[in-house]
Amino acid sequence: KSSLICVCMSEVIMAEVTGAQLIAEALKSQNVEYMFGIVGVPIIEVAMAAQAAGIKYVGMRNEQAACYAASAIGYLTGRFVSCCPAPPVSQADSREITQAVRLLKAAQRPLIIIGKGVAYARAEKEVRELVEVTGIPFLPTPMGKGVLPDDHPNCVAAARSRALLQADVIVLLGARLNWILHFGFPPRFSPHVKIIQVDLCAEELSNNVRAASALLGDIRAVVRQLLETVRSESWRFPSDSEWWSTLKEKMTANAQISKSLALQSTLPMNYYTAFHHISELLPKDCIIVSEGANTMDIGRTMLLNYLPRHRLDAGTFGTMGVGPGFAIAAAVLEQTQKSAQRVVCIEGDSAFGFSGMEVETICRYKLPIIIIVINNNGIYSGVDPETWKEMEKMGDMTTIAPPVTLLPEARYEQVMSAFGGRGYLVRTVEELCSALQESLKNTHTPSLLNVLIDPASDRKQQVLYTHTALHYSSICCNIINNLDKALLSCIFSF
Amino acid sequence: KSSLICVCMSEVIMAEVTGAQLIAEALKSQNVEYMFGIVGVPIIEVAMAAQAAGIKYVGMRNEQAACYAASAIGYLTGRFVSCCPAPPVSQADSREITQAVRLLKAAQRPLIIIGKGVAYARAEKEVRELVEVTGIPFLPTPMGKGVLPDDHPNCVAAARSRALLQADVIVLLGARLNWILHFGFPPRFSPHVKIIQVDLCAEELSNNVRAASALLGDIRAVVRQLLETVRSESWRFPSDSEWWSTLKEKMTANAQISKSLALQSTLPMNYYTAFHHISELLPKDCIIVSEGANTMDIGRTMLLNYLPRHRLDAGTFGTMGVGPGFAIAAAVLEQTQKSAQRVVCIEGDSAFGFSGMEVETICRYKLPIIIIVINNNGIYSGVDPETWKEMEKMGDMTTIAPPVTLLPEARYEQVMSAFGGRGYLVRTVEELCSALQESLKNTHTPSLLNVLIDPASDRKQQVLYTHTALHYSSICCNIINNLDKALLSCIFSF
Amino acid sequence: KSSLICVCMSEVIMAEVTGAQLIAEALKSQNVEYMFGIVGVPIIEVAMAAQAAGIKYVGMRNEQAACYAASAIGYLTGRFVSCCPAPPVSQADSREITQAVRLLKAAQRPLIIIGKGVAYARAEKEVRELVEVTGIPFLPTPMGKGVLPDDHPNCVAAARSRALLQADVIVLLGARLNWILHFGFPPRFSPHVKIIQVDLCAEELSNNVRAASALLGDIRAVVRQLLETVRSESWRFPSDSEWWSTLKEKMTANAQISKSLALQSTLPMNYYTAFHHISELLPKDCIIVSEGANTMDIGRTMLLNYLPRHRLDAGTFGTMGVGPGFAIAAAVLEQTQKSAQRVVCIEGDSAFGFSGMEVETICRYKLPIIIIVINNNGIYSGVDPETWKEMEKMGDMTTIAPPVTLLPEARYEQVMSAFGGRGYLVRTVEELCSALQESLKNTHTPSLLNVLIDPASDRKQQVLYTHTALHYSSICCNIINNLDKALLSCIFSF
Amino acid sequence: KSSLICVCMSEVIMAEVTGAQLIAEALKSQNVEYMFGIVGVPIIEVAMAAQAAGIKYVGMRNEQAACYAASAIGYLTGRFVSCCPAPPVSQADSREITQAVRLLKAAQRPLIIIGKGVAYARAEKEVRELVEVTGIPFLPTPMGKGVLPDDHPNCVAAARSRALLQADVIVLLGARLNWILHFGFPPRFSPHVKIIQVDLCAEELSNNVRAASALLGDIRAVVRQLLETVRSESWRFPSDSEWWSTLKEKMTANAQISKSLALQSTLPMNYYTAFHHISELLPKDCIIVSEGANTMDIGRTMLLNYLPRHRLDAGTFGTMGVGPGFAIAAAVLEQTQKSAQRVVCIEGDSAFGFSGMEVETICRYKLPIIIIVINNNGIYSGVDPETWKEMEKMGDMTTIAPPVTLLPEARYEQVMSAFGGRGYLVRTVEELCSALQESLKNTHTPSLLNVLIDPASDRKQQVLYTHTALHYSSICCNIINNLDKALLSCIFSF
Repeated sequence: KSSLICVCMSEVIMAEVTGAQLIAEALKSQNVEYMFGIVGVPIIEVAMAAQAAGIKYVGMRNEQAACYAASAIGYLTGRFVSCCPAPPVSQADSREITQAVRLLKAAQRPLIIIGKGVAYARAEKEVRELVEVTGIPFLPTPMGKGVLPDDHPNCVAAARSRALLQADVIVLLGARLNWILHFGFPPRFSPHVKIIQVDLCAEELSNNVRAASALLGDIRAVVRQLLETVRSESWRFPSDSEWWSTLKEKMTANAQISKSLALQSTLPMNYYTAFHHISELLPKDCIIVSEGANTMDIGRTMLLNYLPRHRLDAGTFGTMGVGPGFAIAAAVLEQTQKSAQRVVCIEGDSAFGFSGMEVETICRYKLPIIIIVINNNGIYSGVDPETWKEMEKMGDMTTIAPPVTLLPEARYEQVMSAFGGRGYLVRTVEELCSALQESLKNTHTPSLLNVLIDPASDRKQQVLYTHTALHYSSICCNIINNLDKALLSCIFSF
Repeated sequence: KSSLICVCMSEVIMAEVTGAQLIAEALKSQNVEYMFGIVGVPIIEVAMAAQAAGIKYVGMRNEQAACYAASAIGYLTGRFVSCCPAPPVSQADSREITQAVRLLKAAQRPLIIIGKGVAYARAEKEVRELVEVTGIPFLPTPMGKGVLPDDHPNCVAAARSRALLQADVIVLLGARLNWILHFGFPPRFSPHVKIIQVDLCAEELSNNVRAASALLGDIRAVVRQLLETVRSESWRFPSDSEWWSTLKEKMTANAQISKSLALQSTLPMNYYTAFHHISELLPKDCIIVSEGANTMDIGRTMLLNYLPRHRLDAGTFGTMGVGPGFAIAAAVLEQTQKSAQRVVCIEGDSAFGFSGMEVETICRYKLPIIIIVINNNGIYSGVDPETWKEMEKMGDMTTIAPPVTLLPEARYEQVMSAFGGRGYLVRTVEELCSALQESLKNTHTPSLLNVLIDPASDRKQQVLYTHTALHYSSICCNIINNLDKALLSCIFSF
Repeated sequence: KSSLICVCMSEVIMAEVTGAQLIAEALKSQNVEYMFGIVGVPIIEVAMAAQAAGIKYVGMRNEQAACYAASAIGYLTGRFVSCCPAPPVSQADSREITQAVRLLKAAQRPLIIIGKGVAYARAEKEVRELVEVTGIPFLPTPMGKGVLPDDHPNCVAAARSRALLQADVIVLLGARLNWILHFGFPPRFSPHVKIIQVDLCAEELSNNVRAASALLGDIRAVVRQLLETVRSESWRFPSDSEWWSTLKEKMTANAQISKSLALQSTLPMNYYTAFHHISELLPKDCIIVSEGANTMDIGRTMLLNYLPRHRLDAGTFGTMGVGPGFAIAAAVLEQTQKSAQRVVCIEGDSAFGFSGMEVETICRYKLPIIIIVINNNGIYSGVDPETWKEMEKMGDMTTIAPPVTLLPEARYEQVMSAFGGRGYLVRTVEELCSALQESLKNTHTPSLLNVLIDPASDRKQQVLYTHTALHYSSICCNIINNLDKALLSCIFSF
Repeated sequence: KSSLICVCMSEVIMAEVTGAQLIAEALKSQNVEYMFGIVGVPIIEVAMAAQAAGIKYVGMRNEQAACYAASAIGYLTGRFVSCCPAPPVSQADSREITQAVRLLKAAQRPLIIIGKGVAYARAEKEVRELVEVTGIPFLPTPMGKGVLPDDHPNCVAAARSRALLQADVIVLLGARLNWILHFGFPPRFSPHVKIIQVDLCAEELSNNVRAASALLGDIRAVVRQLLETVRSESWRFPSDSEWWSTLKEKMTANAQISKSLALQSTLPMNYYTAFHHISELLPKDCIIVSEGANTMDIGRTMLLNYLPRHRLDAGTFGTMGVGPGFAIAAAVLEQTQKSAQRVVCIEGDSAFGFSGMEVETICRYKLPIIIIVINNNGIYSGVDPETWKEMEKMGDMTTIAPPVTLLPEARYEQVMSAFGGRGYLVRTVEELCSALQESLKNTHTPSLLNVLIDPASDRKQQVLYTHTALHYSSICCNIINNLDKALLSCIFSF
């Protein structure tokens, strides 16, 4: 609901101040606490009236970023508004529960996938019980990370590909079989896999892959139903099974590879080195916001989450430019709740360009956000300064510069210092650790770490596949979004 | 057409490189010379193929800015594409021409308004002749500025309000009676004014005000028709008329006021002082891009244009964020044509925030654009640093900071220096002149002048009126745009 | 799903016959049994391929009617398609069930409202048990009629206004508080009424009126949960309560009024007389289709339903022209299932005009539908033949004829006989009974009874209220429908 | 404009009668003379207020038909409203005129194509002069028929294919190179043909085929310009040219074929026989409305037009169901103007089904329209009664009846007699002539001739080509229409 209000703000007509007051009071009576808009016309009057009514107003630099911020508030506070009745809770049909547990008990290689829906439903307690009572391995989706800690003994994220491919029964909790989960199709999934799907939304059940058991209902309530049955049958998946052996073997092997990449001492750093040291220093309760291509992908595996709803990223459609807005929303919330949790926003350098001017907003409101730009001089792969200079000699850059390349060694940290925050240029592991430690200590000033990594550092595999899927998805999405907006505009106009 | 191509780019599906090549060759065969997209997926392959085919590719930081750049190219190059036939030319009905000249000859207080349509039609030669042969005073609209030089003896821009209000016959050349021209209504226009309207678009004729004479056709051709008739009748509006006296008297008075404001020596500077000195130094052939609230409004009167199509601004709907994209398009064009004309982009500080990250693009392509940020710490009016510090002590800024206020004395010039361009902090007239002179001399490096002016410097009058009109217009416009995009998406999907 | 297929048909592109075959086979593999299209291009090839694949094809006279027919099939067969998994079933939260039963037990004047959702969910058995176990009075909505027989002792439809107004606790089963239920607002409902709402759709819960208890889930499953709790507490609402007394008293009084209207012997007949005799003769298992203004409204109360899903009418938005399409769908279904149930389509004369040409379709496929046109020479009220002739003498009818008036005594029955069906002109009760009995006996030939009633017969009350609500609703609906269609078109175009 | 008003009517909100009056007065002040709506809610009040204000209101049976009627009024009366200024007139560039005449003079095989635009522009006098002064052969498009009489000596419609294929220079007057003109492409046009295109709409120039000379402007004004130049050069295309010989030879041959088909005496009649006799009897000034597949196609060649704007048909997109609405509009107009011209509506039997119930409207308003249904028992080709009976014995007709077939020998004339008009069943040439003569004599009563022709009578060639083009066009058109409506709805809602 907050996001709608945000969109709405830039379109409200006011004849007189009293109109603005009416709107502000209506919002207040709906328990709206935060408003995100832009600095400027046409919303000055409403913004002022809102502040007078005790609503916090964050004036941002571009409507896009304001929308992203508003959409994050809903996810983080988890109330879609308190003057409205609590959302009704529905349970699954009890016969379906019996059938689901029967499937689970017959599984040789069971797997639980924890999606964003679990975080929305605040079902972390119940899901942890399900994992621990059954002893089944689990995988989080990007936005499902942290529902259970990433270092939980049952988390098999480090053997993700093998777990997906070999599982014979999957409990899909509030996750969608879209391109992030390879649509549930071979060759990434077994063609014989049986899906036990738990979702709030009937239309999602059996999407892409027909569910062997479809459990429609509130995720928290349904997991409670599953638990009750599992417990009453005293069933547990054996920890000495071949399934656990094969997964653990793969996890150890993968950890080895990551570690050796992370400990490489050549400069410029690679992605794994940078993320390894960041991960070591970040407090367990910090909120991680992330966007970018490699930065988001590799960061998903290298940066651990320990608490639910402590990760926000560019999501299913990889919308670039969301980072600063998300981080501002999270930081405003922490500030209000006087919690000591820090917000860390880890951006690819290309991604940072979409909404980078919001650092002024961050500084203006003194939000102690730590932005880390993982800077490889471009997207997927950039060019080093020497090659760039050679290129410049060859003539007009618009005909030469590869379309994946940005200015080499751009000094993004100065965009932060320009507005009074602290900027750090980071080339070495030592500089990285010292800058991050200093930033974490300083709870009053935003900071930006511009981490120069190897422009050739890349993770090429999977990319092509992802592209195609992303292409199709994003085209559909664009069209639907546009029509949706048109529809909303019409409805508003009544 | 270029703008469509730009939008299109972010939505193209490609299965293989050959698809990208096909698209690039199709664009090339349509004589497309410039492409504006973003740095990154999903358009890498097309961008590379386009470069291989000899098309210049400018990779920008946000799709919004790329769209703005693409839309400016069409206006500047004046060819909607050369493989297509030249646009057909139509003339007005000769009986209507006779009627129009009859009206003109009967006028006591005639006025010519020169709109954007004249610039599009490249009718500057013909319109100059019309003005000089008839001796009638003229007013340019914002985008019509420069069709004739702003210092032309017949230009009565300095007496704009009086000219509009007292004119009894107006020749409206390619201009629309929208909110910029107060819809043609009293109290800004005489209720008895007779409009001779020249336009290419039948639907525009008699819009808002019924035209006394409606001349449908190509503006260049119609003005030629008017000229022929006027010449054959050897008619000329007398320069010793009462109309010229009253206009000249008002122009002198207004010039006095502007001059006294411009020469105030108190610091921080006011708008008029800053613009006065900028205007004195800018070469007559430079291209001026502008956006902002007061910055654009006051700049329209204070910055003179001498050549057609040398001014680009946020236009009818005041869309913020267009400046850097427009400037990039203009500079890429100048670079290609190896002309020595400079591009100067004059931004309000709030406006600059919408697309400010494009300075990286400017630096990456070494476009010698001069950005001048007129910085009053916000929109319409900001807060001075001392007051800001007092506010900070009072508590949470989201509940206190006025929604028109940005961070005081933000160092926007460092956003430029972060990417290798030259940044200047400007507080005094001397600093302004020296920084601008230095920037103009340097033809290889972009620069940004952060001109700190009085946060209380404002031009309050008219604002409220403008707001309301802008509100309604922009809401209509939003809805139509959204539906339009949806329609385009559908059409593209075939 | 069938309706989509119908819409789709008129837009399918086929390069060759093989394309048509592919489509037909795809439909067949989805267990599509019926297709409704038009007679003619552009769907001939698909229609022929569909028939070859064993799908029944009904070629109608106008796309509108074909769409209505397709939408009825889904409702009647109750399977949105069998190759897909059965729709998942969810239950309400058990704590909410307890709360709901507590409310019910505390009620002084409880009421159950049975909506279309109950018919869709095929929950007739469970709802009958709930009514009979609890002893609570119930009211059906128009499309909920027949879930329980209209002559069930607990049905209080004959005291509808009093029941709605005085109820203190309402169990709302699959019904929406839209204009048909007066939005749940005073003065038609008590301001203190407590709503126990059972619905499959979370967004519908607490719409317009906040539910005291919101039970989200499959209606059949939730009613089972309610029943279980009610039974375990052995609770029953006393039949000797004051509530039952006041309702029964009102029902008796209203029955008296209807009866006296129904037994009036003046000619032309009034609505009540016509419906009374029709109702007496119709078999209990016939399917009643109805549309029109007064015809549908009065028919809802006068024509009893005894079986679920045996009534189809113009529904929430009163869309005119649906009747013949609905009737054709129902008759095709009966024909396929070789059931002996008859389809009776009761139309206002104005409503009949919207799709009247479909009688040719009915005759072509030899569907033994009985159409009864209740003919009052117009909408709401018409003009008698003598007055009409006077009007004709007065001049041009386009300036005189009231916009509610149709041609007096139009012989609609001849539209049926033109195509080989039987047409009856009916003026008296005797003619009505004999024509209807004859039509019911004839199971091979369609028939149409043109029942001439008093043109001044009207039911004026409520009309104005209805108009306004209908207006607003239908405007919203129009806009949403249009955008919806646009969206569908886009999605199809992929 | 009338058509918009019609659409609007079904969506207007009215709180009170005064609102209706306001609308009616606004329409009246815009000189609206005719309103087409439906009989019924929600427009009763506006309709009554309109009548009170002197506007003629025609209450029809379906919104579709009302829209078609409203759209025809604009075309027939030719005033897109008189309180508005006359539409401005523009001329072509004089240099383009010179170039066009140069092309024409160099032509060996010139051709003039007369499109609907000429009829709209009311340029019949000027175009006749052009044809007669230059001596060039001409072809009308379907809606361009009658601008010059079809029996004009220069009309080469009877050699259409040869004329299009062999012409080396074509003057395209207000016609579009869409599927009706085979997109201007080979093999139906010469690949070397040079097009001189005259159109009011810049976007249409050079569409599909690049114009050798593009003359933008009001058609009447541009043809006058052409004439002036042609006359001043005293040029005329020789009547003894090889071009005229080859065209005349083909026309004679084709006339022979048509005549032999037309004079066949076997029964049932074929299309050519029916049309030949109808054509002989129709008065030269009658207005012909037509729709259907073969009926419209063959009728275009067989039924001659002699006066401009005296033919209305299903047009570019072949929209079925337009006939009765068009005919009603034309007849209401004739009635108002007290002219003696008759309206004849020639319908295929399938086409008649789309809006056939409007015969009640025709009878109600006593409009002496003559409807001729050319009945071949279906679309393209039907089934004879004996074959049909055999089919019925084979089982369920929904699985057997071909989707091009309607009920054999359906008695459409009884649909007319049901409402008091005269119905004629026609099997022979004698019956056809006598029924048509009788109908023409009777100026007070509508009539319908149900002309039974050979169900196997067909004209198969070209059909497939047409289908494909029609398919693509109509899909695009559907989507654009839907979005257009959505857009309109939004705009209305302000």
